[in-house]
Amino acid sequence: MSEILERFRPLFYPRSIAVIGASLNPVKWGFEILHHLLLGGPDCKIYPVNPREKIILGLNCYPSIKQVPGEVDLAVITVPPEIATGVVKECAEKRVKAVVVVTAGYSEVGEREKKLEEELVGLAEQGKFLMIGPNCQGIMCTDSRIFAQIMGVFPLEGPLSIISQSGNIGGTLCRYCEHYNVGFSKFVSSGNEATTSSEDIIEYYGEDPETRVILAYIEGVDQGRKFFTIAKRVTRKKPIIMLKGGGTPVGARAVSSHTAALAGSDTVFDSACRQAGIIRVEALQDMLDLAIAFSTQPLPRGGRVGIVTMGGGLGVIAADACSRSGLEVIKLPEKTLEEMDKILPSRWSHNNPVDLAGAEGGRLMTRCIEALIRCPEIDGLIEIGIGFDVQSVKEIKSSPFFPISSESELATLTESFKQRNRRFAENLMRLIDESGKPLLSASDAVATPDGEESEAIKALRKRGIMVYPTPERAAKALGALARYSKYLKETAKETL
Amino acid sequence: MSEILERFRPLFYPRSIAVIGASLNPVKWGFEILHHLLLGGPDCKIYPVNPREKIILGLNCYPSIKQVPGEVDLAVITVPPEIATGVVKECAEKRVKAVVVVTAGYSEVGEREKKLEEELVGLAEQGKFLMIGPNCQGIMCTDSRIFAQIMGVFPLEGPLSIISQSGNIGGTLCRYCEHYNVGFSKFVSSGNEATTSSEDIIEYYGEDPETRVILAYIEGVDQGRKFFTIAKRVTRKKPIIMLKGGGTPVGARAVSSHTAALAGSDTVFDSACRQAGIIRVEALQDMLDLAIAFSTQPLPRGGRVGIVTMGGGLGVIAADACSRSGLEVIKLPEKTLEEMDKILPSRWSHNNPVDLAGAEGGRLMTRCIEALIRCPEIDGLIEIGIGFDVQSVKEIKSSPFFPISSESELATLTESFKQRNRRFAENLMRLIDESGKPLLSASDAVATPDGEESEAIKALRKRGIMVYPTPERAAKALGALARYSKYLKETAKETL
Repeated sequence: MSEILERFRPLFYPRSIAVIGASLNPVKWGFEILHHLLLGGPDCKIYPVNPREKIILGLNCYPSIKQVPGEVDLAVITVPPEIATGVVKECAEKRVKAVVVVTAGYSEVGEREKKLEEELVGLAEQGKFLMIGPNCQGIMCTDSRIFAQIMGVFPLEGPLSIISQSGNIGGTLCRYCEHYNVGFSKFVSSGNEATTSSEDIIEYYGEDPETRVILAYIEGVDQGRKFFTIAKRVTRKKPIIMLKGGGTPVGARAVSSHTAALAGSDTVFDSACRQAGIIRVEALQDMLDLAIAFSTQPLPRGGRVGIVTMGGGLGVIAADACSRSGLEVIKLPEKTLEEMDKILPSRWSHNNPVDLAGAEGGRLMTRCIEALIRCPEIDGLIEIGIGFDVQSVKEIKSSPFFPISSESELATLTESFKQRNRRFAENLMRLIDESGKPLLSASDAVATPDGEESEAIKALRKRGIMVYPTPERAAKALGALARYSKYLKETAKETL
Repeated sequence: MSEILERFRPLFYPRSIAVIGASLNPVKWGFEILHHLLLGGPDCKIYPVNPREKIILGLNCYPSIKQVPGEVDLAVITVPPEIATGVVKECAEKRVKAVVVVTAGYSEVGEREKKLEEELVGLAEQGKFLMIGPNCQGIMCTDSRIFAQIMGVFPLEGPLSIISQSGNIGGTLCRYCEHYNVGFSKFVSSGNEATTSSEDIIEYYGEDPETRVILAYIEGVDQGRKFFTIAKRVTRKKPIIMLKGGGTPVGARAVSSHTAALAGSDTVFDSACRQAGIIRVEALQDMLDLAIAFSTQPLPRGGRVGIVTMGGGLGVIAADACSRSGLEVIKLPEKTLEEMDKILPSRWSHNNPVDLAGAEGGRLMTRCIEALIRCPEIDGLIEIGIGFDVQSVKEIKSSPFFPISSESELATLTESFKQRNRRFAENLMRLIDESGKPLLSASDAVATPDGEESEAIKALRKRGIMVYPTPERAAKALGALARYSKYLKETAKETL
């Protein structure tokens, strides 16, 4: 096992955890962390530590870490900063291997408090233990079921790992991805990064076999050179999707009172990201959209795309967005045009975007997509309009005018709609697998509770495939896939 | 009544409607339009016209418009282009006042088909009737309950009116807004705009007392000068939010096969929009976000904003986004800082964004917001983190460790969470009303089915107030409100 995997092992895969500052009071962090650890149910020992309690949440409580029997791999600390130094000292004496200091009130507050943080750094260096924080919300690892964190989020297991200089932003990403059925491997809220910095965690994620896609929310980096050197090494293996906080002067001012980081020049930062192959996004929503695309879609070989739509305007804005995202909406080769002519009624757009112009969806749409995805000039596809099965049925159901004679006839019709849509989604997934090309879906059906019930959307979501609410969001995600694919090819050449 | 209101009256407030091409076949447009008209249930006569049927959906069917008894205000036509000319001619002879040609297959297809379109133009000019289309999906007016359209969308009554050169994009906006409980007054799908152009409809919306906010999806304008002159007059009274399709060369190519419009130079178009006070958005989602903000929030007097957040990182990205959206995240005046010190535990950010740094929400948050909104240096507010009542209760409910002894204790706790959150939302709305300042909320709670159940989110949505899924989306919407407010002030000065 590599040195870095070994070093982080006690953090993510501990055999025993102490929660120092564990509490009976449900609004205290010391309660929440213990509670979330227990809810996660990891296969390891858990020791609450608090001199004023005997039992917390059914577990024996110890007056100090030193009284805990046996070895402790990981200590999570929530006691106030005034006494945290003493507690960390005891952890060092106990030879705890990793410490997460959740406690806030350090360098993010002022100069005097910064001294307290320096004491922690001294202890960590002396004791040679891994320290996360202070001023963080904790860490998680889904495959070891460790949820040593304030937030009550329990994501599914999956390919994403987060390093976040904001606990809340990490939490937001977890909640969103849960909704889309995409899972996480690990999450570190790095707080003030007194010793362990974002680049250390990125380096670890680079080696970690469970992590396939790295998400980073960064407000500032202390050692830019080291950060980007590590990032560049990692992006040759795995994508790093980054949101940078403090890109504007006023945001930078907010950063300084948040994590005490120095946001630095945004232009310099941006160009360093590009050189290191980091995929920098503009907004939290883009991070979500890209994270899910990178988790569940194959990388395209190039940037040449096809677009299929039921309605012209949606195709137009998709084409605009693809173009702005660096993709090439190709002119269809003669052979493909002929195939389309055979499939579609004559009023189709004879162009890419392929606009079915209101021709009945389902089967025709599937055949179009099949023809396009098999076209060797096309590297990836966007299809627009999936998921309106439930709405259609609802309309029929609610209509006193619709010529449906019996309940059983309605039931049959409902079932046939559902089946048609499930089949449509299954065909999309089959085509992704067969072609190895990304195929992104967009539909406003996902904006509605009815849409959420659509068999097609449910089928895709089961596999973690997101149906983007607008064509532009799908285009942006596909553009990022294509750019990263290009970057990988270029770096592969460099290495030759 | 002004001339333009009079001219559009038969379109939106007809006393009788004929559907020419009405059909018994549920997949035909002629069925769908008639069906949607009947579902809407307007207070007017409806006549299906089709020589091959006697009765459709319970209504007497007429062989031609000329056989229809009495006057016909509005005719909606779905027959194929080859026979549509004859049908429109009969409408002229019958002195129908407005005609919507849904039929496609005209100038969007080619030169030969363009000739057919010119025949329609000739007839409309000669007969002096209002003609919408061809190649459109229909029109709607919620207060007269007229849904003369292919799409099965029945939005609530409300302040938005759409002119769209794409039926689908209009439909998408309707579905989204329905989800957010924001309603529409009118919708015109203008298609190829053979006679009635987008600017005519915008001019009408400018005068229409039911329309407060105008949404326009435009792929191209034929008479730029006229378009922007009218728009400039209208934006002094009502905001026009515009999405432009075909802003890129490849999008423009798609436009030509969609509505046969010429997209033109995007730079020129953009600068003309700015001069006319049109709020141009980059993507469909922005249109939704702004439409809802303009419908339900007061306009700010200026661009100086306050941000309140439960978590630092979300505050940082909100500040960045505000700044990028042209807003000023002000330094808090001494007096407000002192007020905050009294309300919040000492670890708060002492800065704008006001970061509660994990201090318990609800009551504290309300007091902060109250202090900020009353600060005369602040024109508008963004608050982040509403809506986590249901999640908290769920966590407690699902936990075998939580010290809750009985069902009734759990019920009491659940109710208290709900009440707290309902109260929080009610306070937000009270503060908007009292201060006359916009107060936008953002929370990832809306991404989840649980969040949708949040009492706070439900209470806001009841009033059509959107909780934005990310802080950046709220900031973008608030920025647009502030820019429009500034524009109104500037144009008011010009007129003096």
